[in-house]
Amino acid sequence: MKHKLAVTMGDPAGVGPELSLKLLAKWTTEWKTIPVLYGDLAVLRRVAPKVGMEDVLGQIDVISVEDVTKELTRPALVDLKVVEAKSFTPRRVNAICGKGSYAYITAAIDAALEGHVAGVVTGPINKESLQLAEVPYPGHTEIFADRTGISNYCMMLTSEKITCALVTAHVGYSEVPGMITFSRLNEVIELTGKAMYRLRGRPAKLTVLGLNPHAGEHGLFGNSEEENIIMPSIEHCKKFGYLVTGPLPPDTAFLPDRLANTDAYICMYHDQGLIPLKTLAFDDAVNVTLGLPMVRTSVDHGTAFDIAWEGKASVNSFVAAYEMAEGLAGV
Amino acid sequence: MKHKLAVTMGDPAGVGPELSLKLLAKWTTEWKTIPVLYGDLAVLRRVAPKVGMEDVLGQIDVISVEDVTKELTRPALVDLKVVEAKSFTPRRVNAICGKGSYAYITAAIDAALEGHVAGVVTGPINKESLQLAEVPYPGHTEIFADRTGISNYCMMLTSEKITCALVTAHVGYSEVPGMITFSRLNEVIELTGKAMYRLRGRPAKLTVLGLNPHAGEHGLFGNSEEENIIMPSIEHCKKFGYLVTGPLPPDTAFLPDRLANTDAYICMYHDQGLIPLKTLAFDDAVNVTLGLPMVRTSVDHGTAFDIAWEGKASVNSFVAAYEMAEGLAGV
Repeated sequence: MKHKLAVTMGDPAGVGPELSLKLLAKWTTEWKTIPVLYGDLAVLRRVAPKVGMEDVLGQIDVISVEDVTKELTRPALVDLKVVEAKSFTPRRVNAICGKGSYAYITAAIDAALEGHVAGVVTGPINKESLQLAEVPYPGHTEIFADRTGISNYCMMLTSEKITCALVTAHVGYSEVPGMITFSRLNEVIELTGKAMYRLRGRPAKLTVLGLNPHAGEHGLFGNSEEENIIMPSIEHCKKFGYLVTGPLPPDTAFLPDRLANTDAYICMYHDQGLIPLKTLAFDDAVNVTLGLPMVRTSVDHGTAFDIAWEGKASVNSFVAAYEMAEGLAGV
Repeated sequence: MKHKLAVTMGDPAGVGPELSLKLLAKWTTEWKTIPVLYGDLAVLRRVAPKVGMEDVLGQIDVISVEDVTKELTRPALVDLKVVEAKSFTPRRVNAICGKGSYAYITAAIDAALEGHVAGVVTGPINKESLQLAEVPYPGHTEIFADRTGISNYCMMLTSEKITCALVTAHVGYSEVPGMITFSRLNEVIELTGKAMYRLRGRPAKLTVLGLNPHAGEHGLFGNSEEENIIMPSIEHCKKFGYLVTGPLPPDTAFLPDRLANTDAYICMYHDQGLIPLKTLAFDDAVNVTLGLPMVRTSVDHGTAFDIAWEGKASVNSFVAAYEMAEGLAGV
């Protein structure tokens, strides 16, 4: 029996539904896994003719949550029946869309926890719609962490050109220094080293960045976070066999020579990693959550309301996220 | 009488001396200005044969500090006689080199303040050598600010692809939020808008970044620095005719579409600007100090001790800095 991977449809008003159809349309029997989409048939039926994807609905099975235990021979949709076709306006923030987005995610997580799917690939959601629906999480990662009971996880963004793991992510600028601790850094280095080993098939070269300009320049800038926390963590992780270098001055760390000698960067905060990643890899990156009891990858773009429901959105990142999930799941 | 531009030789042990020779060697009578190098003849005589530039010394005038008032017909060296030829080891940190670096800079600043040169282009210095020489400044910019009595200045890095002005620069990560104020932001927007107007010959499009991830995402991350400080400053500057947009999420601000529609980015902290700048422009950028009573530009690289005194260093950034100074001086 072929392994399955759960895919969530994302916010109904965004590019998620059309990208889900595009992803399923690409499936062939040569794929190593079978995608199971968690979403709403009513939404897909409404979007399909607008983006010229009506035929896809005839090429998939529509199943119930329980049916995911059964053997599949082609892609399937778990129709969760949360969002009705006419209950929302495409490209707009809406509570019902937040409610739907959340339902797709939780159902997919539960399927993974029960072992019916080898991982979860998530489509783009809208944080404001989530808030309107009173979902008490700022985003995907927090939902996964809470539902799986995990607190030691980290966000990694990866593309062909550049991979960045984040020591801190969706927190305000000012909160970052207080969150960079010896144990947290060790954890992120370990999670990243293990994931990259699985993806590369060999020990991965990890480059750790400093927090301050010029990595503090020997204590000239900052509160010696480099000397007090980052260097001891690097030394600690080296003892366990990780190939760790740093802390490097952040501004020169992404020049071509260093980039070519780095499998993954360990970045202290969101924009330290995401500015170079998006600058170099645009929308080609995949978002991976490390440390969960399941594989979880995601597209690296948002709901793109400005181009949604027009068939213009590129499916490349979604496909890359799906392939990455297959690689991490080792199926 | 042709305008002159001061050039400082930089740290004797680094790539500054050989790059100075390379820059002077490129001079022709077609240049709009005549370069006046502030340095030490003894150092240049020692480095010249090592990098195959001995002929350059025969093509320049060696003059005293006072002679800079006179008309020149070709490049000149103001020989400050601070560093003796054998008093230091190339590629090494040394107090005498810090002392020399500082002397070249202050003499050049004084020539500019007295109106004898139209601006100053600085070669790379070593912060540790400066400290060993007990020079009480972390770098060039602070020396210029103090000696000219200016406190309202800002650092801008510019290349063909991307230009970034910094609201805060050489301070620790934690100090940044306290330094971002309404008046400081207005100042940086105004300084940048005026400089870019001079360089572009038309009103410049300025893109202001947020401080927090996703520019705070409507108050979700951070202490609403975007709403409380950045947005009011943007509105304020718009009233004065500046073409200002923002605050933008920092991670997506450097994608091609936005880059093509931005003359200069206003960045909240050092690495927010310098990571994308160095990632996109490598070593092609020029460092400009805005707000001084004179034009000041600099190479965007350091002393490069690892390749110094071998003739390998590229003079491109130094030439770009010189040309930028000519453009800003309007000569």
